[in-house]
Amino acid sequence: MAELSAASAVPIATIKYYLREGILPLGDLSKPNQASYSPVHVERLNLTRALIHTGGLSIASVKRVLASIDSDDSLAQVFEVAQNTVSVEPDQDNIDPLALARIDTLTQEWRTYPTNPGRLEAARILGTLDTLRMPLSEGWLAKYAQAALLAAEADLDEVETRPDRDSKAETVIIGTILGDAMFAALRRAAQEHETSRRYNPQVAAAESGSGSNTVGVDATD
Amino acid sequence: MAELSAASAVPIATIKYYLREGILPLGDLSKPNQASYSPVHVERLNLTRALIHTGGLSIASVKRVLASIDSDDSLAQVFEVAQNTVSVEPDQDNIDPLALARIDTLTQEWRTYPTNPGRLEAARILGTLDTLRMPLSEGWLAKYAQAALLAAEADLDEVETRPDRDSKAETVIIGTILGDAMFAALRRAAQEHETSRRYNPQVAAAESGSGSNTVGVDATD
Repeated sequence: MAELSAASAVPIATIKYYLREGILPLGDLSKPNQASYSPVHVERLNLTRALIHTGGLSIASVKRVLASIDSDDSLAQVFEVAQNTVSVEPDQDNIDPLALARIDTLTQEWRTYPTNPGRLEAARILGTLDTLRMPLSEGWLAKYAQAALLAAEADLDEVETRPDRDSKAETVIIGTILGDAMFAALRRAAQEHETSRRYNPQVAAAESGSGSNTVGVDATD
Repeated sequence: MAELSAASAVPIATIKYYLREGILPLGDLSKPNQASYSPVHVERLNLTRALIHTGGLSIASVKRVLASIDSDDSLAQVFEVAQNTVSVEPDQDNIDPLALARIDTLTQEWRTYPTNPGRLEAARILGTLDTLRMPLSEGWLAKYAQAALLAAEADLDEVETRPDRDSKAETVIIGTILGDAMFAALRRAAQEHETSRRYNPQVAAAESGSGSNTVGVDATD
């Protein structure tokens, strides 16, 4: 176990906790008084850490998604588990029917179940924005839907590159859970770029052709 | 205050707390023993609730973004406040330089500061995925970057529709903070659609031309 801790940089106390919780499978107990661990254990520890620290998942959620990877769930079922894990529990009674109708119109070309957590969550957010008297335009929504479809295509393309069912299932989990964070991060960079492009055209002119993707590199503050 | 509570559906105790914290401006105290509140107060309460409940912001973060709206910050500065509020504190020492180089290559056409929290966060996530020996392909990343740029363009377009600096600033805050949740929700719906399209082609054929965006509407479970 000391070696497993060294290989994964996870403290022994944490490894023991994961073993107790069933997140990490028990080591091979063939030798007396010593369990042996394999690269599979290191990978599982890395996955667990990523889900908790980057994905923000609870221990209970980690157990649920790992169980789905280890089961014979279909990929569609693994997607469902991943989506439900990272979605707010939809409270259908609290959703404005008009907001739901706008989301359904927006995504009318898409085949989704009425219970899709994303459909309900999108309507809930839209309802919130209407309450604020800050309705976002149909143009904004349409571009977001187009961007979401592009990301979903990339997700599925990526899953298809994986050689077997288990690595496909892992990619579904990783992509669904860390994909939100990756997109949010890239959107922040893109917002800065787009703000600079529109409101600092002089910088744009000065920088163009320099090959640098950064402005103000030499700012010393 | 009872009327303000009724108009906003926020409990009086919560309103008093927001007044103490300076989140809500004091009412007009021109009459003795009675403060009067305006529609501005109702709007500010709605905005606060949305930032806390849908955006997941802490009270301290709400104070920071409201202060930026109320200041004479430029829109670029408001964006920066909004972005820093919803970003993990970037820990530059913990970022794999190779992952950072991949993000910089990916976004080489963009003009972003090296300190952009999105740039650093994207590199951190990429580093995590590499640790998992689950590197995501350059194709996946490129589509995510393309989607992020589309969303950022929509964000800036939306800001430009607003008539004055204060409503532009509010839109920057709302779009940055609730936009993550909206995109994540739409991606879930798009993933289900894309999974169904690729793996259930028969359903696709049966449904096409029906005008319905849902499958299994008549499922009774």
